[in-house]
Amino acid sequence: MSKQKVALVVEYDGAAYKGWQAQKFDVATVQECLEKALSKIANHPVNVICAGRTDAGVHASAQVVHFETESERPLRAWTLGVNTHLPPDISVKAAANVAEDFHARFSAMSRRYRYVIYQSEFRPAVMGKGVTWTYKQLDVKAMQAACEYFIGTHDFTSFRAVGCQANSPVRTILNFSVDQFGQYIVLDVRANAFLHHMIRNFAGVLMTIGAGEQPVAWAKQVLDVKDRAQGGITAPPFGLYFVDAEYPEHFEVPKPSLGPHFLPFKEEPSYELPR
Amino acid sequence: MSKQKVALVVEYDGAAYKGWQAQKFDVATVQECLEKALSKIANHPVNVICAGRTDAGVHASAQVVHFETESERPLRAWTLGVNTHLPPDISVKAAANVAEDFHARFSAMSRRYRYVIYQSEFRPAVMGKGVTWTYKQLDVKAMQAACEYFIGTHDFTSFRAVGCQANSPVRTILNFSVDQFGQYIVLDVRANAFLHHMIRNFAGVLMTIGAGEQPVAWAKQVLDVKDRAQGGITAPPFGLYFVDAEYPEHFEVPKPSLGPHFLPFKEEPSYELPR
Repeated sequence: MSKQKVALVVEYDGAAYKGWQAQKFDVATVQECLEKALSKIANHPVNVICAGRTDAGVHASAQVVHFETESERPLRAWTLGVNTHLPPDISVKAAANVAEDFHARFSAMSRRYRYVIYQSEFRPAVMGKGVTWTYKQLDVKAMQAACEYFIGTHDFTSFRAVGCQANSPVRTILNFSVDQFGQYIVLDVRANAFLHHMIRNFAGVLMTIGAGEQPVAWAKQVLDVKDRAQGGITAPPFGLYFVDAEYPEHFEVPKPSLGPHFLPFKEEPSYELPR
Repeated sequence: MSKQKVALVVEYDGAAYKGWQAQKFDVATVQECLEKALSKIANHPVNVICAGRTDAGVHASAQVVHFETESERPLRAWTLGVNTHLPPDISVKAAANVAEDFHARFSAMSRRYRYVIYQSEFRPAVMGKGVTWTYKQLDVKAMQAACEYFIGTHDFTSFRAVGCQANSPVRTILNFSVDQFGQYIVLDVRANAFLHHMIRNFAGVLMTIGAGEQPVAWAKQVLDVKDRAQGGITAPPFGLYFVDAEYPEHFEVPKPSLGPHFLPFKEEPSYELPR
């Protein structure tokens, strides 16, 4: 039998996991759970590659992965079948057979994350690990103004974790918006790719500005200084969701509606990449 | 020092608990966690009484409790202070000193619950234990029509659990609505009081009707037959939230905005009790 490449869209609540990537130590990761479940359906060991590795505690409403298999299965086996072998906090939402040259990581033109802040005097108990809580009143307009400094191609040294292993600190932010839905303030960021902790560091700066502890222009100062030590705090992982990866259309990767599902729907930003 | 009665509004994610009520066996309950935390602040053992005991896996956005204490504390101690001693899935949202004759259970004129159904082809991983999943397309209009049979004063024998210990099966449903918000279908029920499993049994009947497996009039048949065995399935606990208890105004019990916080805001039903 010939090899077939399959793409999946996967949703997960990352609260209980040490991140996406399988590790040498015996800890629970999303990748390992998914590979185990897929291997049961495929009847052979399966290795998956994802669009964007997420850290411990970070969630995904639509992570994209691919894997290769020699087992011929109907697509329902890769969704409903695999889901019966997955824990309740991981679920496959869509599957498609894809061309041999598709690669979940290298074919991705952009990744998109949403970071959900919950503003309330008291700590939330419902979805306590699904949002980032702040008791501070945030000025959303100030955050909106500040996030515009990040749009475009910049050296994001100030926003990358010390241990970040990317070769270059330069990334292109394609969209960045800050929206309020009731008690939620949602950062929505799309970029060609992200550095380690980049969005949580953006969130740290924007929350500081939103709280009035720094002026709007501080966002630009942090960007310009190219020094992580001057970039303020790294916001917690719990509010962060990987929500989309964009691929060339001809790959026909399934595209579920924008998540996470508890957020109100919002008009999509245009998906044109800069030329 | 004289005794003071304090009322609290408490939010909890019930997924990890064997329900509200403290039990003889050594299992985690919301009541025990709350009493332990309160006892640390009060410096003496505290016993709490709640407006409505919830089952294993059931949540609350605004459970109301009261307790008595001889320790004089600022109200912040009963909210922020207690929260530091509570696990992440339980949180006090409001506190108030109340009159001696206030009783969280016996003073309550009505209780209100919301039951959140999530309609999707695939099992949700995000908030997997915060909603009740169905892969079936539900006819919301049929569910809306069916729920009207329940409004008013009826013998709800068909909707009470076999082990229900209430003296009478008669209850008064004051409001019952079914609303759709995107992929959520939300049952919103207010009654003077509820029988054991009553809302989950309502949900079972309404989901069966919504799926087209029974006609709208089946709701009335089940009600009239007064036989639990003919009342269909008990829907899972995960979508159920205790959202409000109503008290006479003069008690001045704090009233946070209607939860759970991930649901869109919705106009409140009128709060007049029938005379």
